Amino acid sequence: MKVMAVDLIDSLCAIVGSGHVLTGDAAAPYCEDWRGRYSGSALAVVFPADTQQVADAVKLCAENNVAIVPQGGNTSLCGASVPLPQGVQIVLNLSCMNRIRAMDASNYTLTVEAGCTLESVRLAAEQANRLFPLGLTAIASHCEIGGNLSTNAGGISVLRYGNMRDLVLGLEVVLPDGRIWDGLRSLRKDNTGYDLKHLFIGAEGTLGIITAAVLKLFPRPQAVATACVAVRDPAAAVALLAHLRVTCGDKISAFEIISRTCLDLVFQHIPDTREPFAGKHEWVALVELSDALLVSLDAPLRAALQAFGESVVESAVTADRDQSEIWWRLRKNISEAQKREGVSIKHDVAVPLSRVAEFIAEASAALRAAYPGVRIVAFGHMGDGNIHYNVSMSDAEENKAFIEQHEHDVNRIVYGIVHALNGSISAEHGLGQLKRDEIRQYKSEVEMDVMRSIKHALDPDGLMNPGKVL
Amino acid sequence: MKVMAVDLIDSLCAIVGSGHVLTGDAAAPYCEDWRGRYSGSALAVVFPADTQQVADAVKLCAENNVAIVPQGGNTSLCGASVPLPQGVQIVLNLSCMNRIRAMDASNYTLTVEAGCTLESVRLAAEQANRLFPLGLTAIASHCEIGGNLSTNAGGISVLRYGNMRDLVLGLEVVLPDGRIWDGLRSLRKDNTGYDLKHLFIGAEGTLGIITAAVLKLFPRPQAVATACVAVRDPAAAVALLAHLRVTCGDKISAFEIISRTCLDLVFQHIPDTREPFAGKHEWVALVELSDALLVSLDAPLRAALQAFGESVVESAVTADRDQSEIWWRLRKNISEAQKREGVSIKHDVAVPLSRVAEFIAEASAALRAAYPGVRIVAFGHMGDGNIHYNVSMSDAEENKAFIEQHEHDVNRIVYGIVHALNGSISAEHGLGQLKRDEIRQYKSEVEMDVMRSIKHALDPDGLMNPGKVL
Repeated sequence: MKVMAVDLIDSLCAIVGSGHVLTGDAAAPYCEDWRGRYSGSALAVVFPADTQQVADAVKLCAENNVAIVPQGGNTSLCGASVPLPQGVQIVLNLSCMNRIRAMDASNYTLTVEAGCTLESVRLAAEQANRLFPLGLTAIASHCEIGGNLSTNAGGISVLRYGNMRDLVLGLEVVLPDGRIWDGLRSLRKDNTGYDLKHLFIGAEGTLGIITAAVLKLFPRPQAVATACVAVRDPAAAVALLAHLRVTCGDKISAFEIISRTCLDLVFQHIPDTREPFAGKHEWVALVELSDALLVSLDAPLRAALQAFGESVVESAVTADRDQSEIWWRLRKNISEAQKREGVSIKHDVAVPLSRVAEFIAEASAALRAAYPGVRIVAFGHMGDGNIHYNVSMSDAEENKAFIEQHEHDVNRIVYGIVHALNGSISAEHGLGQLKRDEIRQYKSEVEMDVMRSIKHALDPDGLMNPGKVL
Repeated sequence: MKVMAVDLIDSLCAIVGSGHVLTGDAAAPYCEDWRGRYSGSALAVVFPADTQQVADAVKLCAENNVAIVPQGGNTSLCGASVPLPQGVQIVLNLSCMNRIRAMDASNYTLTVEAGCTLESVRLAAEQANRLFPLGLTAIASHCEIGGNLSTNAGGISVLRYGNMRDLVLGLEVVLPDGRIWDGLRSLRKDNTGYDLKHLFIGAEGTLGIITAAVLKLFPRPQAVATACVAVRDPAAAVALLAHLRVTCGDKISAFEIISRTCLDLVFQHIPDTREPFAGKHEWVALVELSDALLVSLDAPLRAALQAFGESVVESAVTADRDQSEIWWRLRKNISEAQKREGVSIKHDVAVPLSRVAEFIAEASAALRAAYPGVRIVAFGHMGDGNIHYNVSMSDAEENKAFIEQHEHDVNRIVYGIVHALNGSISAEHGLGQLKRDEIRQYKSEVEMDVMRSIKHALDPDGLMNPGKVL
């Protein structure tokens, strides 16, 4: 086995060059996940420079029955992008494949390699006076397009532009046997058989390795207005969004909600942040309108908020970029503030928009009854019915014991309510290792079985990212 | 075999009731396609009333190794929804499953059964002050949602709202073995494994039978403005669209192009139609702007057209519904006018928007060189790069011989150019029987092979709509 591994590494070096293969300590950073929750070990971490090298490496691994973990920026929140602990897998890191292959501004498309960071893609679009709208609040300079595709990334702009899945016209994929599927089409309409790209998007690298993509671009917004709105409760926020959809139509480009606990954590841990209003409020919504034309949006937004009536406790509207950034910092720093505060039991859930308020009320009541004094950090993409719902105890010592003893039961309570409301236990983070077992509680046997059939059809030897998703 | 067939029909009658099984002459109308091009024969045509009946019928057929043709409004333009000639298949017509199961206006979703006509779905949305945007110009009262899903229907609103695929949140599907997959989720975000719904959408019934769907709704447009624009040539139309995307942003909800030959055919065959301008022009574009807010759109549209300069030969703008309908009748009646004129060699192709003008110029030059006097009817959804490109001879007798002798070669010329421009030989109509062989010329062996793997994984005995797509 040892000799075999050495042979394999020699062969990998022959494919990508020995400077692009890491082993031992040098490989370790690529074997730990973003949240520090999963730590694995790899035979080697391999950095191919182009699609052919990926294909050759995959073919070699397939012939030797060695499993592969595809990796981009390694920012998975579910342990999807790190190897398992046994040390028998190869990490195939796409970060060196970071070329912009083509910009077609009049077709509103951009062809990029999987290793491009989201930030670099957004920048390339901007330079051609176009928008690539995927909006991840904190990690755009780390996460890579291949990972965004493989997890069908969401973020703050889904309400207007859709998930990553909706932002793609074509893919190039190296299949588990090393063949290259060139599906790099840049067509708005193509009905010639099964739409294979949707299989690989969101599959977390378990069906093949995405090496390049044709992305959809949009006109850049010329006008933006932002409102910070204190609302009575989540139900009022849902009603406000419904009201705004009627009065402001599809100009709404973001609708986020932040609870009092989130705000307090941000004020405590993030410098230069402060209450958006003179008084303290339990729930604050951030609303953004945008328009591809240079029109005035702040006046209509202000009027719409006034017309909504007394469920809006207090509100402020701005078209000024600096002022809106001050508000957005509150939202964008919640994750960082939580990280500094300590660990928590995190949930990334979605329910139909019409049931968001019900979810928050029911889950909070159930958790408070079961664990008096529990701290709930609820925030997120209300416009998509997607709430990040994190649970902990304020006291650090107590919290440690709480998580150790009760994580499983807390998940049961939260996911049980989500499931009863026809929701999803992973709205935008995927399954990875974290929710691989959990999902079997909530998905039908029929659905699991169809997923297994697909997996078996494309990867019969189970060599693509085993131990994740399925 | 005869006895077996009789037994099977008895068993089908036991499932759906004998009044819902047609055989012999009564079955014949369901065995001929919309264009009168494909005529088959079925053991029986079965009309299930609910999902369980579909599941029971499919299970029965699977046990008896009898193939099934799923059928909705039977408006396929590629022969996808009729049985093969041998008379050994069952047609499973979903038209009796036409219930609106749920309207959730605040979630902007509508849950409908596969047999609902597109028109009834649009109406149900309208009654709740919502828009279901799928815009098929001529057949909304005939085509059904199951077929719209199975062919990933397109139409005039794709530019703004996407294809049918983009308008769906969840599906209910009866699998080839008769199991029911309940994927009727109404979530904007759900990343819990492979996105199975996208497999069934556009699969033309070859992987299972879609029985119900959760559809996305949108705010209803309050304001609409329409422009009729004579442009110098297709290149000017492409440039105009680019200009309008910059000046009018995502308010553009349709951008269609019509050639002189189309207009002449419409004037000839459709009563109460006339030239939109005093002079005759070679190319006319129809542009629609819409907004969910009650704003004035005609003035900005007029200004945008004026700013574009002399490539616009002549233009007129209206916010009046009756006037815009007069223009839209020109576009919507092209298919009907062609039908009355006689048969033609039809192509439904797409290329990147940046190459539409190139496609039209190259294809026309090549065809005119090969077949002097050939008549080209080009029109369609230019905003999506999707051109309907039909070829015939003006003289009826000559045309008959032309089609008989040259259809194959005409296809070679047109599809060869499409392929060289990285286009699609079926933009929105699917493959069905018509392009099943053709597609093998243009798709890579890798892609065909992955499609076959998927087909084999879900339908190992090949009983779902055999002879179509693959």
